[in-house]
Amino acid sequence: MANMELWYTENQTDNVNFSMKVKEHLYSAQSDFQKIDILNTYEFGRVLVIDNWTMVTEKDEFIYHEMITHVAMSTNPDIKNILVIGAGDGGTVRELTRYNTITNIDMVEIDELVVRASQEFLPFTANKLEDPRVNLYFEDGIKFISGKENLYDLIIVDSTDPIGPGEGLFTKEFYTDCFNALTDKGILINQCESPYYPNNATEMRRSFSKLEELFDVCEAYQYHMPTYPSGHWMFCFASKNLHPLKDFDATRWNALNLTTKYYNTDLHIGCFSLPTYVKQLLRD
Amino acid sequence: MANMELWYTENQTDNVNFSMKVKEHLYSAQSDFQKIDILNTYEFGRVLVIDNWTMVTEKDEFIYHEMITHVAMSTNPDIKNILVIGAGDGGTVRELTRYNTITNIDMVEIDELVVRASQEFLPFTANKLEDPRVNLYFEDGIKFISGKENLYDLIIVDSTDPIGPGEGLFTKEFYTDCFNALTDKGILINQCESPYYPNNATEMRRSFSKLEELFDVCEAYQYHMPTYPSGHWMFCFASKNLHPLKDFDATRWNALNLTTKYYNTDLHIGCFSLPTYVKQLLRD
Repeated sequence: MANMELWYTENQTDNVNFSMKVKEHLYSAQSDFQKIDILNTYEFGRVLVIDNWTMVTEKDEFIYHEMITHVAMSTNPDIKNILVIGAGDGGTVRELTRYNTITNIDMVEIDELVVRASQEFLPFTANKLEDPRVNLYFEDGIKFISGKENLYDLIIVDSTDPIGPGEGLFTKEFYTDCFNALTDKGILINQCESPYYPNNATEMRRSFSKLEELFDVCEAYQYHMPTYPSGHWMFCFASKNLHPLKDFDATRWNALNLTTKYYNTDLHIGCFSLPTYVKQLLRD
Repeated sequence: MANMELWYTENQTDNVNFSMKVKEHLYSAQSDFQKIDILNTYEFGRVLVIDNWTMVTEKDEFIYHEMITHVAMSTNPDIKNILVIGAGDGGTVRELTRYNTITNIDMVEIDELVVRASQEFLPFTANKLEDPRVNLYFEDGIKFISGKENLYDLIIVDSTDPIGPGEGLFTKEFYTDCFNALTDKGILINQCESPYYPNNATEMRRSFSKLEELFDVCEAYQYHMPTYPSGHWMFCFASKNLHPLKDFDATRWNALNLTTKYYNTDLHIGCFSLPTYVKQLLRD
């Protein structure tokens, strides 16, 4: 007797599907904000899917979470006070808690259910949310940051795509609030989509151009993220003063002896070297 | 009345499928060596599929073909005599013919039918095969190169995966013949798979370690190839004498004023900065 085959298919574009074979559909819930699913898959281990988009997989989450944190932390090792918006799976906080120099992490996730489901099913990312330096706020990040001034050394916007609850995290008003909430040497790291498929590329350009208007330093960097559409994804590094290459001291970061699987100080420099078509998209 | 939906699904691994929506199945043939299909797709334009593996798409072939050629050409602008093995779609030769300094390109493709089909259906890659400097040989590259000595400034192995007709192009015997056929400053560029899925990673390691035993200089570089499994792919740069970073002169290449969409001289440097897990795979 043949076993039933269960596949999760993601419509990466109207004309492109990506499918992973599923061992078990572990969790499914509709929160006040979005649909949350957790799968156990053959190739990628456990997978968090929100509104039918793959957010985190056990196999490659290390790439995303190392790249969203260590580029800023190595540019300014004096970072002490951090705001993380989104990031409900906990992976971003897990990486940050590895720095003993960090004294406070405010994590603002609009959807408590993502955090609770991650704590139950994704212990590999959600295992540091009870670190005493971490304060969890289940609130709208847009409201949380409004009016705050000169407070955070680093703000990480670890959001879903700019549709649904993540939409307001891609506006000029929100970026202006981030600018104001940052200290003089403050850095903003922003999930800013992908250059390859037209929908993602449009959002990447919009997000980058808004940040570039506000911040003296604004640079995009790339990483290989196999389970996201096209596998070619970007973060933006924006700062009032610090430049991710000019103010970067590889020796200092390497002396911390942090073990990483994707990030390293050579890659730190290399990831800002973008393909010509991506540069053109960003500068147009 | 609903239109029929036609999708091409590639089994990237046993547990991962990648599917593209097809406008028209333009061509299908079984040659003496392999199955050749050409599709017209909504997202990627025309697509060459060999033995059910995507080889070339109109949308992103520029990435592959720029990266397989310009890294070597910019490391040694004195390259004059070139051997290309495989590359039946013509894209590698197209990029090479842009250099006026090149005097001869021997292209050895085992399967004439790939070339003829590409000339008919993929003019965007196959449009320079009639350049007077190009000599087409429809032979086995392994036999062609055997016994040749001190002849080529550059050998590019633009092969399919190491299964089927491409298999012999990943052996130590073949690499030794390449070594012998190269001039003192000769460079070998080799398609060497991907670090992400286990099957590809195994082949990447095998190929790299064989080259590393033979050549004083052996470095891997990465590129984003969205329509290949995982999107994270690698070439090997092997040479008796020239180093892709130490012997690289960005000013000289930029003075050529070649327009590229992916490759640029910053990226040239950046693409050799590999993620930690990839370095570990290569050095183990």
